Amino acid sequence: MSQLLPQALSELIDQLGQLPGVGARTAERYAYFLLKNQTKSNQLLSKSIDNLHSSVKKCPKTFALIDADQEVSRLYDDPTRDKKSVVLVEEPLDILPIERTKKWHGTYHVLGGVLSPIDGISPEDLTIKELVARLIEDEVSELIIATNASVEGESTALFVQKIIEEAGLKLKISRLAQGLPVGTDLEYADQITLGYALDGRKVINEN
Amino acid sequence: MSQLLPQALSELIDQLGQLPGVGARTAERYAYFLLKNQTKSNQLLSKSIDNLHSSVKKCPKTFALIDADQEVSRLYDDPTRDKKSVVLVEEPLDILPIERTKKWHGTYHVLGGVLSPIDGISPEDLTIKELVARLIEDEVSELIIATNASVEGESTALFVQKIIEEAGLKLKISRLAQGLPVGTDLEYADQITLGYALDGRKVINEN
Repeated sequence: MSQLLPQALSELIDQLGQLPGVGARTAERYAYFLLKNQTKSNQLLSKSIDNLHSSVKKCPKTFALIDADQEVSRLYDDPTRDKKSVVLVEEPLDILPIERTKKWHGTYHVLGGVLSPIDGISPEDLTIKELVARLIEDEVSELIIATNASVEGESTALFVQKIIEEAGLKLKISRLAQGLPVGTDLEYADQITLGYALDGRKVINEN
Repeated sequence: MSQLLPQALSELIDQLGQLPGVGARTAERYAYFLLKNQTKSNQLLSKSIDNLHSSVKKCPKTFALIDADQEVSRLYDDPTRDKKSVVLVEEPLDILPIERTKKWHGTYHVLGGVLSPIDGISPEDLTIKELVARLIEDEVSELIIATNASVEGESTALFVQKIIEEAGLKLKISRLAQGLPVGTDLEYADQITLGYALDGRKVINEN
């Protein structure tokens, strides 16, 4: 449809269409919004995109995202954070939902993905070596493996567990609980989730 | 959550969150995609955003979007286009779905919105005066009013019709047909649509 729209607009639509989950219609809506938007707001956006790569780096300890001028993540060097308890997540943004629970006062370690032979992602591509070094250095006593409940997430969790056991490290390793999400009707629960919910049932009386 | 993410990343998330229909989670996904994206692709995107306002203008005849160095829309000055038939649409992007049908060989006129007293949009904010001038100048014989099937779209269509009649112009005015979309089960059709479909029924035999 390049002849129907001004070139600058169709180029922008093409580029916005590369964003995850954005099809042609959505990209058109975004581009048209930006066209009607104030020049100043657009300049702020384009500047943020330009500055992104130079302003963000990975924490050398946790591999969380930090400002380029920071040394390590605040989630690591904050003295109120318990360095002996670590949640292992796949991606940097996975830290956000856990922090939002306000229930975690330990630290994090970002794997940088999951093992996936199909996509050619092997243990060397993840931060497993750095994790083991950190478990030793910080004398970590509990590791909560919070990879996603996908096939790759599960097999990565198993692999990490095996590596830690082979290294002879003595620490508690756990996985996040699986079961019914809050507010779900039994009727709509899938059978695998319901199976986990049964296996992990909690006794609520004293007998 | 500003302390959890690098400043450059959370600024970008805020700005992406202004796009229509983009909530915090989606903006996070987009920003993280851009962070992992190649610097070159990001530069293309930011440059497109920067160039947008200076590279795009409105056609003085049809009010469709055109390149800044064009004089009038190709959909108007193309000799294969019938200038005597005009489709009236609300927004510039509404031209695209009609062009995609490949069934229209006339031209377009973009109103620039719909009448909406609540949002303070009055006839002077739309290109109604320019439409009437064009109907006279180009001796337009048919105007298809293709405003959306919303309350505002309908009342704008009525208003435009009234203005044309008051101006004493003799031309065919029509609205897009309303009825069942292709592939819809009767069961799922809403009653207003079904009402239109009944009213607009087409005889298919000869008796």
